[in-house]
Amino acid sequence: MKNAKSTKDNATSRWLSYRPEIKVVDCTIRDGGLMNNHHFADQTVKLVYDTCVAAGVDYMELGYKASRKGIKAGEHGDWKYCTEETLRRIVGDNPGSLKLCVMADAERCDYHDDIPPKKDSVLDMIRVATYIHQIPTALDMVKHAHDQGYETTVNLMAASTIPDAELNEGLEMLAKSEAKAIYVVDSFGAFYSERVHELVKKYLGYCQSSGKEVGVHMHNNLQLAFANTIEGIIEGANFLDATIAGLGRGAGNCPMELLLAFLHNPKYELRPVLDCVQNHIEPMRAKLLWGYDLPYLLTGMLNQHPRTAIKFKEAELKGEKGDILKFHDTVTDQE
Amino acid sequence: MKNAKSTKDNATSRWLSYRPEIKVVDCTIRDGGLMNNHHFADQTVKLVYDTCVAAGVDYMELGYKASRKGIKAGEHGDWKYCTEETLRRIVGDNPGSLKLCVMADAERCDYHDDIPPKKDSVLDMIRVATYIHQIPTALDMVKHAHDQGYETTVNLMAASTIPDAELNEGLEMLAKSEAKAIYVVDSFGAFYSERVHELVKKYLGYCQSSGKEVGVHMHNNLQLAFANTIEGIIEGANFLDATIAGLGRGAGNCPMELLLAFLHNPKYELRPVLDCVQNHIEPMRAKLLWGYDLPYLLTGMLNQHPRTAIKFKEAELKGEKGDILKFHDTVTDQE
Repeated sequence: MKNAKSTKDNATSRWLSYRPEIKVVDCTIRDGGLMNNHHFADQTVKLVYDTCVAAGVDYMELGYKASRKGIKAGEHGDWKYCTEETLRRIVGDNPGSLKLCVMADAERCDYHDDIPPKKDSVLDMIRVATYIHQIPTALDMVKHAHDQGYETTVNLMAASTIPDAELNEGLEMLAKSEAKAIYVVDSFGAFYSERVHELVKKYLGYCQSSGKEVGVHMHNNLQLAFANTIEGIIEGANFLDATIAGLGRGAGNCPMELLLAFLHNPKYELRPVLDCVQNHIEPMRAKLLWGYDLPYLLTGMLNQHPRTAIKFKEAELKGEKGDILKFHDTVTDQE
Repeated sequence: MKNAKSTKDNATSRWLSYRPEIKVVDCTIRDGGLMNNHHFADQTVKLVYDTCVAAGVDYMELGYKASRKGIKAGEHGDWKYCTEETLRRIVGDNPGSLKLCVMADAERCDYHDDIPPKKDSVLDMIRVATYIHQIPTALDMVKHAHDQGYETTVNLMAASTIPDAELNEGLEMLAKSEAKAIYVVDSFGAFYSERVHELVKKYLGYCQSSGKEVGVHMHNNLQLAFANTIEGIIEGANFLDATIAGLGRGAGNCPMELLLAFLHNPKYELRPVLDCVQNHIEPMRAKLLWGYDLPYLLTGMLNQHPRTAIKFKEAELKGEKGDILKFHDTVTDQE
């Protein structure tokens, strides 16, 4: 319940009021899609959409815009491509105040073809995900989407592995872009609070003068996704990514239900999210198998990509439960 | 991996070094005993003991000293009473460097009878748990245990519900006691980081001049037990409670495996804990049913005792799965 004091500049802690600038972005279907190749039933997407509307969430991310060149039919579900037709099947004309967005990975999206003018789309925002070395491409994508009429953000991935000099140069470039927000992204779930404070402060230092916001997208490898989101808020981040029941790649994300329980803005409603967690998301856990577990602890602790941990868990799904000690010895040996 | 910078007074963040003053206290059997009326098999207690020894943990808490007046035979397991005979069945003469402790609740322990002179016991420390209004009794217990030759701590429970004026008076009294450490205890799992900083700072303010340490004992209702333990460390707490796989009452505690992955002191070994989690503790989860879940989120969010949430989960054990929306409406209605 304590919460959302204004940024640290504010001398007094504020635990009962709230910061109206804060925007909550639901990434359940987008990040969760990484656990099932984006094969969500329409009904599931609709239930998450309805939950976001009822909960007063600010944005919902429905999936990716991705290149369809050379794809095998059926390999990925519709939420990997998010065509206008796919989107409208669920949201119609999206009449309410919930804004819609999709993610587009740098170098994996034919953005000139696949991002139509805003007037022809039910989408409000394009989120460009980029590794540090792809920033020039990301900037061109942001420019294109912006020129088409969308809000944009940049999600700078794997921040825990970027050397300071490169990060500073990258942030300088991003600060000059049209993006509305630049995200601190903990792709490997490796951050502790002090690192979150340091990075949000750094990003704000580059972005604030041009009126940009800073966002946070956390993973739960160390059971710190929610905690680190709070630390981002305390430091001044105003764009907050979360997913229902934490559904997302590997150890998952900051759980929406914890975030809304924390935020004090009366526009947010926790109850619809509890409903969705209990009745629609948790029932998928046995099959999608996201969430904190020991292999994710180990890759997070080592600041490694979670792919080895995901493999360990996938084997479990097939009834071949691995041995965490062997896994420990393998991943620490790779160091 | 980042970690344990010295306290905030230290201008530079220290992420690679460690604070040798930090002591890790394993509470697996003691706090976990609240989930099974202390009915652990000797073999389980021995495995946890062996794990603590192998992991380089500083203290292991084996259970309670509790009054045996009027008890029904068999209602509670041996770890509720921790007689010398019970303890030695597992630890023998406890030859290594791991120190042993038990908890004694104020007003629930015949301490004059049940805490023998240190020379006759394998125990090293007595931890007195007290609510704010029981402090005079707690002080007498601490004095008795101290005079018998033990180290002592005071765990001041339910700190989230104590009005400031009472807390200040209580801390003044505790600061004059013989206790080695005074604990910030988040009994309801209701703390966010700013509250942890505030309380650890306050406790240190009262205790530091008399050479006492401050400890933290966190619960995981909001997935913040580990995060809040880190925040305690940052603020200067040196006694850290944790349990293997987070086993403990309700939503459980700060998981030992996360804490040891975080701490940099080379005396700590993560691998034996991973072994114990996978092979001995997790297999008990289906029956003991501790750990984060929506009912605990709700009582934590509302700063309520978790007893209603525990009841909800106990019904689940009996195959009567409750509805989280009904639970939500009931507990928020009680507000």
